[in-house]
Amino acid sequence: MKPLIVLITDWTYKEGAIMSTKGVMKTIDPTLDITDGTHEIPQYDIWSASYRLHQSMRFWPKGTVFIVVVDPGVGTARKGVAALTQDGYVILCPDNGTLTHVAKDKGIAQVRHLHAHLRLPSTTGTSIFHGRDVFGYIGAKVASGELTFEETGESFDPSEIILLADLTYGVKDDVIYGHLEIDDPNFGNVWSNVPVQLLYDAGFTLNDDIHVTIRHKNEVVFDTYLPFRASFGSVQIGDPVAYVNELLVLAFAICQGSFAKAYQIRYGSDWKVEIRR
Amino acid sequence: MKPLIVLITDWTYKEGAIMSTKGVMKTIDPTLDITDGTHEIPQYDIWSASYRLHQSMRFWPKGTVFIVVVDPGVGTARKGVAALTQDGYVILCPDNGTLTHVAKDKGIAQVRHLHAHLRLPSTTGTSIFHGRDVFGYIGAKVASGELTFEETGESFDPSEIILLADLTYGVKDDVIYGHLEIDDPNFGNVWSNVPVQLLYDAGFTLNDDIHVTIRHKNEVVFDTYLPFRASFGSVQIGDPVAYVNELLVLAFAICQGSFAKAYQIRYGSDWKVEIRR
Amino acid sequence: MKPLIVLITDWTYKEGAIMSTKGVMKTIDPTLDITDGTHEIPQYDIWSASYRLHQSMRFWPKGTVFIVVVDPGVGTARKGVAALTQDGYVILCPDNGTLTHVAKDKGIAQVRHLHAHLRLPSTTGTSIFHGRDVFGYIGAKVASGELTFEETGESFDPSEIILLADLTYGVKDDVIYGHLEIDDPNFGNVWSNVPVQLLYDAGFTLNDDIHVTIRHKNEVVFDTYLPFRASFGSVQIGDPVAYVNELLVLAFAICQGSFAKAYQIRYGSDWKVEIRR
Repeated sequence: MKPLIVLITDWTYKEGAIMSTKGVMKTIDPTLDITDGTHEIPQYDIWSASYRLHQSMRFWPKGTVFIVVVDPGVGTARKGVAALTQDGYVILCPDNGTLTHVAKDKGIAQVRHLHAHLRLPSTTGTSIFHGRDVFGYIGAKVASGELTFEETGESFDPSEIILLADLTYGVKDDVIYGHLEIDDPNFGNVWSNVPVQLLYDAGFTLNDDIHVTIRHKNEVVFDTYLPFRASFGSVQIGDPVAYVNELLVLAFAICQGSFAKAYQIRYGSDWKVEIRR
Repeated sequence: MKPLIVLITDWTYKEGAIMSTKGVMKTIDPTLDITDGTHEIPQYDIWSASYRLHQSMRFWPKGTVFIVVVDPGVGTARKGVAALTQDGYVILCPDNGTLTHVAKDKGIAQVRHLHAHLRLPSTTGTSIFHGRDVFGYIGAKVASGELTFEETGESFDPSEIILLADLTYGVKDDVIYGHLEIDDPNFGNVWSNVPVQLLYDAGFTLNDDIHVTIRHKNEVVFDTYLPFRASFGSVQIGDPVAYVNELLVLAFAICQGSFAKAYQIRYGSDWKVEIRR
Repeated sequence: MKPLIVLITDWTYKEGAIMSTKGVMKTIDPTLDITDGTHEIPQYDIWSASYRLHQSMRFWPKGTVFIVVVDPGVGTARKGVAALTQDGYVILCPDNGTLTHVAKDKGIAQVRHLHAHLRLPSTTGTSIFHGRDVFGYIGAKVASGELTFEETGESFDPSEIILLADLTYGVKDDVIYGHLEIDDPNFGNVWSNVPVQLLYDAGFTLNDDIHVTIRHKNEVVFDTYLPFRASFGSVQIGDPVAYVNELLVLAFAICQGSFAKAYQIRYGSDWKVEIRR
């Protein structure tokens, strides 16, 4: 069976971009199985694209081809790349930070600067739609077997991949620290990058209360005790809670409410979180 | 051919939940054919999930597996179930009222309490994403043939399924009665649960005027004569109309306007409708 | 391999219309490969449906079946049709202007008035959902091979197809003229119908400044010089630009802003554009 394809973009379905891109891919090989990962990454939000890829890639079969296009720099000097992760996934994307989380979490085994001549021939003359003309086109050729990963471009050192930020977490002086990775735009939950295993290792158990401090650029915006629970459903409607999210990472919610909105909390590497007893 | 799979959730595509869930399913069997029924059920609105399943299930091939996850109680005591309808469809969902309309309309032949050990092994430790770890996982195993319906869980009496409300309609003292089932969030139409056959049986014909009364918790919010027509397109733009909807049920619209908004009308079993001459 | 199917509607995923329609199609043939082109055409906006079809159809394999349903006149006298384009695509749609751009750009080889008896048998009695009962139903039969294009209906002269407007562009007295075709609802770009080849032929080159005048019903709403560039990324964030869009047509943008909003510009045949030196 051919590798599956997953698309992640900030295009939405409000216009014809996805339809055109899928047409290009299905023309290369009508048997390709293309899944919409999401097309609702917030506009130009490369960090979110990087995070969503990291969040979901692991659940797909090895070899799946991810085409990730949040590309405000299209048509400028930024590189288009094909990456192969240590655990065997293929990613086509602009080299603009999209690989940040996956590079940190899984490691990149190989990365290639896409050959300029590999693009949809009929659209030479336009330089603003690499999702369709380059990433979609090459991704479909790779998934169909028409092109090998090695043929997509010139290899370069994975250490040269552009990363958005350092994504560290850890424990220091009995304080568990990390940052806020992402929100859930529907339900208003906020996820940290702190594996709950660090809390268990430090002796916390579910049903403890934990002291949570959140800083934005060193300003404290949240500093209180929260119940540490298995689920946001473990507290009363309207109550805040620290819970174990779907990736076994510490997250914050208000049961059937919005933690992000209630406390005006966003995400990114300048949103630091600390956990104390 | 393997059964088709249809997903119905309130997750939206704004984050990675759908992408992760489809990855789990495609890892179990990459040949599965998974259709997005909708992921835009209003948040926590179990009634709407129940209704959308009822609205569309009948048009799918017998044996299709529906995975329906509007699950505010995830991680609490509510049961996860697999149901087999009298007409041969399989439904995986929380037992929280999601089966209300289908149980009333089609009848449930068998229902099973999902075995706790049947879940995505790599995510033991999280209890908040049964869409991915339980319903998606088991649904994919059933559709792929890896698991029989009988193996999904312990059978219990369908009469114990949690239902949201009584869904009666009928005729009494020359008054046809029922309730408002759902709105159309795009076009602002409102659908009742009254089959138009009841109007025909009572001697009404298309092109009659009918006297429509709508009550919310006994307060009258609409009480006037409406033209009874084949289509909302049968009246002038801006005019209200009672029409035959796509399920041959009585519905209300304003031609190219919003009936729901114009008259501040919502839906549910406490929105009663009566039709008189 | 069977022809692919692409759906274009204004239904959104907020209710069950798409799920029901796909069920009808998959019941006819569960192996059909159905792609969501988009379901977010602005409501009742036939012009946009016509444009999106035109924008993306060319990228699909010849023979692909497009089902395009923006249908405010459903249930009234408007015809349902099947069209075959000169370049070999099949389109099922209401004859309400949906074919405007494709007829102009590609030409219609054959058009047929759909037979009234060809419709989902179980839904006789409702006349308001031709997307499901007629266009989806017949489209699936054609793609599955159960019905030939010729069997879909009575042929009529393509010159009788309803067109929304004249779509001319050209050069007169050294002025290049055309109109604004569409906007990009995400990014706020506005596309004209003027091929950039006309600018090249007139001696303009990328990196020139061009004098752009936009009129709405003869009132001037924009009249200034803009840089003519390969990409919206070629100017500073916040700056306006005329650029070569993905169809090699002249378009207008503000880098990472909204041209449409900033200048209150919409689209349609009464939005004229002129380019001068």
